[in-house]
Amino acid sequence: MSVDTRQAPAELTDEELQALDAHWRAANYLSVGQIYLMANPLLTEPLRPEHIKPRLLGHWGTSPGLNLVHTHLNRVIKARGIDALCVWGPGHGGPAVLANSWIEGSYTETYPDITRDAAGMARLFRQFSFPGGVPSHVAPETPGSIHEGGELGYSLSHAYGAALDNPGLLVACVVGDGEAETGPLAASWHANKFLDPVHDGAVLPILHLNGYKIANPTVLARLPETELDELLKGYGHDPVHVTGDDPAAVHRAMARAMDTTLDKIAAVQRAAREDGATERPRWPVIVLRTPKGWTGPKEVDGLPVEGTWRAHQVPLAGVRDNPEHLRELEAWLRSYRPRELFDEQGSPRPQVLACVPAGPRRLGATPHANGGLLLRELPLPALERYAVPVDKPGMTLHEPTRVLGELLEHVVRETAQRRDFRLVGPDETASNRLDAVYAASGKAWQAATLEVDEDLDRHGRVMEILSEHTCQGWLEGYLLTGRHGLFSCYEAFAHIVDSMVNQHIKWLRVTRRLPWRAPIASLNYLLTSHVWRQDHNGFSHQDPGFVDHILNKSPEVVRVYLPPDANTLLSVADHALRSRDYVNVIVAGKQPCFDWLSMDQARVHCTRGAGIWDWAGTEDDTREPDVVLGCAGDVPTQEVLAAAQLMRRHLPQLSVRVVNVVDIARLLPSEEHPHGMTDFEYDGLFTQDKPVVFAYHGYPWLIHRLAYRRTGHGNMHVRGYKEIGTTTTPFDMVVRNDLDRYRLVMDVIDRVPGLAVRAAVVRQRMEDARLRHHEWVRAHGTDLPEVADWSWEG
Amino acid sequence: MSVDTRQAPAELTDEELQALDAHWRAANYLSVGQIYLMANPLLTEPLRPEHIKPRLLGHWGTSPGLNLVHTHLNRVIKARGIDALCVWGPGHGGPAVLANSWIEGSYTETYPDITRDAAGMARLFRQFSFPGGVPSHVAPETPGSIHEGGELGYSLSHAYGAALDNPGLLVACVVGDGEAETGPLAASWHANKFLDPVHDGAVLPILHLNGYKIANPTVLARLPETELDELLKGYGHDPVHVTGDDPAAVHRAMARAMDTTLDKIAAVQRAAREDGATERPRWPVIVLRTPKGWTGPKEVDGLPVEGTWRAHQVPLAGVRDNPEHLRELEAWLRSYRPRELFDEQGSPRPQVLACVPAGPRRLGATPHANGGLLLRELPLPALERYAVPVDKPGMTLHEPTRVLGELLEHVVRETAQRRDFRLVGPDETASNRLDAVYAASGKAWQAATLEVDEDLDRHGRVMEILSEHTCQGWLEGYLLTGRHGLFSCYEAFAHIVDSMVNQHIKWLRVTRRLPWRAPIASLNYLLTSHVWRQDHNGFSHQDPGFVDHILNKSPEVVRVYLPPDANTLLSVADHALRSRDYVNVIVAGKQPCFDWLSMDQARVHCTRGAGIWDWAGTEDDTREPDVVLGCAGDVPTQEVLAAAQLMRRHLPQLSVRVVNVVDIARLLPSEEHPHGMTDFEYDGLFTQDKPVVFAYHGYPWLIHRLAYRRTGHGNMHVRGYKEIGTTTTPFDMVVRNDLDRYRLVMDVIDRVPGLAVRAAVVRQRMEDARLRHHEWVRAHGTDLPEVADWSWEG
Repeated sequence: MSVDTRQAPAELTDEELQALDAHWRAANYLSVGQIYLMANPLLTEPLRPEHIKPRLLGHWGTSPGLNLVHTHLNRVIKARGIDALCVWGPGHGGPAVLANSWIEGSYTETYPDITRDAAGMARLFRQFSFPGGVPSHVAPETPGSIHEGGELGYSLSHAYGAALDNPGLLVACVVGDGEAETGPLAASWHANKFLDPVHDGAVLPILHLNGYKIANPTVLARLPETELDELLKGYGHDPVHVTGDDPAAVHRAMARAMDTTLDKIAAVQRAAREDGATERPRWPVIVLRTPKGWTGPKEVDGLPVEGTWRAHQVPLAGVRDNPEHLRELEAWLRSYRPRELFDEQGSPRPQVLACVPAGPRRLGATPHANGGLLLRELPLPALERYAVPVDKPGMTLHEPTRVLGELLEHVVRETAQRRDFRLVGPDETASNRLDAVYAASGKAWQAATLEVDEDLDRHGRVMEILSEHTCQGWLEGYLLTGRHGLFSCYEAFAHIVDSMVNQHIKWLRVTRRLPWRAPIASLNYLLTSHVWRQDHNGFSHQDPGFVDHILNKSPEVVRVYLPPDANTLLSVADHALRSRDYVNVIVAGKQPCFDWLSMDQARVHCTRGAGIWDWAGTEDDTREPDVVLGCAGDVPTQEVLAAAQLMRRHLPQLSVRVVNVVDIARLLPSEEHPHGMTDFEYDGLFTQDKPVVFAYHGYPWLIHRLAYRRTGHGNMHVRGYKEIGTTTTPFDMVVRNDLDRYRLVMDVIDRVPGLAVRAAVVRQRMEDARLRHHEWVRAHGTDLPEVADWSWEG
Repeated sequence: MSVDTRQAPAELTDEELQALDAHWRAANYLSVGQIYLMANPLLTEPLRPEHIKPRLLGHWGTSPGLNLVHTHLNRVIKARGIDALCVWGPGHGGPAVLANSWIEGSYTETYPDITRDAAGMARLFRQFSFPGGVPSHVAPETPGSIHEGGELGYSLSHAYGAALDNPGLLVACVVGDGEAETGPLAASWHANKFLDPVHDGAVLPILHLNGYKIANPTVLARLPETELDELLKGYGHDPVHVTGDDPAAVHRAMARAMDTTLDKIAAVQRAAREDGATERPRWPVIVLRTPKGWTGPKEVDGLPVEGTWRAHQVPLAGVRDNPEHLRELEAWLRSYRPRELFDEQGSPRPQVLACVPAGPRRLGATPHANGGLLLRELPLPALERYAVPVDKPGMTLHEPTRVLGELLEHVVRETAQRRDFRLVGPDETASNRLDAVYAASGKAWQAATLEVDEDLDRHGRVMEILSEHTCQGWLEGYLLTGRHGLFSCYEAFAHIVDSMVNQHIKWLRVTRRLPWRAPIASLNYLLTSHVWRQDHNGFSHQDPGFVDHILNKSPEVVRVYLPPDANTLLSVADHALRSRDYVNVIVAGKQPCFDWLSMDQARVHCTRGAGIWDWAGTEDDTREPDVVLGCAGDVPTQEVLAAAQLMRRHLPQLSVRVVNVVDIARLLPSEEHPHGMTDFEYDGLFTQDKPVVFAYHGYPWLIHRLAYRRTGHGNMHVRGYKEIGTTTTPFDMVVRNDLDRYRLVMDVIDRVPGLAVRAAVVRQRMEDARLRHHEWVRAHGTDLPEVADWSWEG
């Protein structure tokens, strides 16, 4: 259906219309004021150059549209008494959301010095995009926000994440027509196939077609309306159009569209919740088509501005130096008739506030946008219940992620009523061997099902779509609104969300400095199906660099763990699920892996983050070892232990220490990362002057980048993945990358001074073993029996 | 329109149908053979366990569908005499594409030892996913391929990139219904709004709905057909359906669909090229709905396999140990009736080859998939023509990217007839100040235009869509088919394509080892609107880590340049545009920047990659300097020069050397990167024992990671971006991150031993200047006049 302004019936009373328009004008006035003014906020005197900021920074173009949406959301929230949250996709329209928060009072409640009067308005204006002030975008500093919007692409998946398991919540989501061109946004339209109308809230996308991006028309705005409707219907939505540039007509159409869509949403939810309807609903979408920079200057210096890309940032750029521009700015500001909107003290007049809801219903005050307030502790079990028994190291094999799956099944089961835990993954939960969770909850799915399907569940809390972006967006939205979760992903393809996680880390970094933002649950990644075991897929699926990416980011936020076996994985996962305001990256294998530590030992080892495995080495307590073998990651740990065993047999006189590192940031100096070791601690593990041969899961230079300040760094030799990937056997992968046990022994022999001649014989033997491997693997397609059947001889 | 198998008229003759089916069966047989067999390829004896590979690795599920598409593409290529390329989105279906290449003979031409007979078939089978053999995916090693497909998401943008400026080419593109869920794929449907029916070729997407991903149904396969049609029409396509599981019926429907769509494409192109039609065409799309693992085992161990996710990889897993499985495999293989397909020698029989086109028309032999064969040198101008005049350093300011824009305009203009150069960017060409190019070519745009629009051009070669993924995919497809281009991007948002560029780098790494692959033009990034100048956007737009990401990858492929001014940018860009088989990352600012070097000096400096700027330092030639100031990047270079000037004034007795680094990989040891310096060269620049204060554009630890092996590394102190981002003034950004001139002088004073007491006074003065800055910027919102008006006093 189409609510075109040309034919929309006037359902608002004139008084309501006037009040809505007053609210909208006030928000527009305040938006322009923030971009331009540093004094004279109420225009109590004629505008002079010294009232203007010296640097004009911000985005006007999208602001009037966001203000319109906010005004009309206010109306329906108040009229219907609903809880709502809004995700502002065009987050660069910061002035709009700040303006609305100030009008409704939530801004002053959050920042008491920005009072709701002329003095506060002056500070609101001045601080915007000003050194020491607030960012130009909707940001963590903005009350009511869970979404920055600077990067574009993630608004809709954030909105869906917020709506999950919030049955009483309406999540409106403004999608800009620029953002709509991005891949992540395009994928996330289909999130409606995963939204449970019974247990989840509703998402109301508002596709805002203002026609232009920075410098180009937008694709969707230039589709014929029938074609756009086909697209939106193809996405599973029912479009309602609001089109126009006459404010009164648009207000009427927008009010009607809001009512139509909310009625539709209510009907859908009623059908599912009360009548047991199970057919996938067609959710409504509003298509709002208004001019970019609406109500701003029509022309500047003879060129059209309103309704064009030229309105994107600051339409009048020469205000301080060009008297004509200054006059135009004053006329523009006065066109909103500020005296009608603000009283003598500068506070919003009652008419402006007529549509504003009360208390936590205000969009700037909803606790859902400050999710830590709603967060509950996860019901985590005693780890002993899921731990694998380990009497002696290396006697048994388990698939670590499968063991973790049992723990996660517990968490999913225990949260069945609370519904505040979700597992997300791009069609890989089973492939990553976490499928035990299906016993507690199936996979969310509202589309058609067939008899042959397994574990699909209309009310499921395991989320699987083949889009890492959508998975990440869902989880971010879910966490930001005060719930818990875990993202399991093929290691290599975590890079797909590199840029998304950047923004989440930035968000957390800023929120940690905002006392009013309550801590939220950490974003937890389980990276598995890792670089060393891509037997089916090879090079395209091999990349261990997500860890490097993460470790470039704010140390107060990022944590990286490489548990070497099943019980250490349990311990690390338990810690991650209990933590707050972090991004935890856990790298762990899904293939059978030796169990090295008992649960008790694992807990102690993971708490330390790095430690000597004295059972694996040959040093005595009286002197420093001759060599230290470091390892981090499951496959490197196995190769280091095998190397230690070879040395024990062939070089029994050599004193070898084995150090395993779980928490890789431990290698950093303590002043660089909260988990960093002091030099004293570090030297105690790695010595100051002995050779260190370190076998690392990923790119070897990461270890150097972490440890370069240590006294003994010059003696450190690191092996790791060096981009030699292919489909081959597991052991051939480590041989090709020089991470294998034989090479490690050779590395030791090459580095320990004063070894007897016998060492040269051993070295030759190691080289022979590598040659034997080469011949065997090419002949048989399998690993050498001595490797395939290897186990630790404790 | 719908070509449903239930009502499709039999337009193929029975003989044609038989031949097509024979080809398809042969390809299916060879696909299964590759997954399972290491001997007995023609089943000349009963299958025994020792004929079976010990590790069964590969993907059967998608293979029969790919084989069907290949068979029918063969038919129309031959029948119509067209040039075609196919992008196989489900690239994990490697066995299918290898099988077809072997049948048509292109495989043997590329790899003569894999002969088209029984011996060659045995080798074809054995090498597949076998150590030392070929990858399980469609890969660089696969004749006819430009697309790996392992990661999923990029097939359609690659296809469009290949079609651009190839008016005679048909690019078929198989899009799996799994891949269709990804963001990059979802975005790239709209690439049809940028395809010029006059100068570009056609893209024929074939959406293959086999219903399942690894373990889940797919979203698109579970939409009602009407809804799917709405979606595809909303994408601007005309869907043609082929649905079924009866081979004969599907062959008939597929043949008719191919003819229908190719007729439609021909009509569209004729209308645009001959009749001057300018309306955006609706291009056809084929929706092919066939069972996953079609013709494979219906059930295994009592569970349904064909038509389900269980057919994704290897349907019969226990073949070597389970006689029942072995028998089922043999029955499956024999169901294709190999004796009808291959003669006594194991060569394909004439009926199998009936549909196969000849010579370079074969999909495995098209030169478009080996683009280096078609590549021509770019017409690059003498750089002097675009260089800015520099008599003395630091006397003038230019916006480097604007200067580069003039050079690019030249290239775009000079390739107007050849049409083998494209500029891509996410709506940022003008923002990045490259808009001079519009004088030579507008922006590609086939959608509606309005009078107010500027520089849109139905035949334009500047490509702008707000999707970094689509931009990257276009450019990759364009380069891989033998053309040139440049991607300009906001620095922070290059991370959006981290994972895509990984795959391109992997592709290049492998192709460099394949003698039959001719070198292609490098993938060139211009990263601008960088971390230090995000005045309008702040933290969300600040991230210099793409360089770190790139430098983790194969050194033989990756190159990173940080030109400090306009002329060095010209030199570096010229080099990048002439280079082959690299990924070049150029980081350069768009804001006014001092001109330091004349064109001659710039050329010499960039060729060296790093060098002493003796005019900037105060050392004499008789001894080593007291301190080295290193810099890389435009903003750090300016701060280092300002610091050098401060020291010249305040610490005149200090001997200071300034070293600028353009080619950041120069810092690596020569054995780690082809551009790396020997220790002798490095020590000559940085000394072995003097303090080095290095100001770097990005994350400071990158410099340590590159230089940690150098003798003098312990004396190196690096300043850079440490995640302190916001909207503020340019100088406040460097102060907040301790990269400013005053801090650099303090760093020097703190590190040079034996400075006179006077240095303490200077240090205090620097601290005072920082405090003065803090107060000024918060009061005025601008930078200190002494900084804003600074220039070099040569």
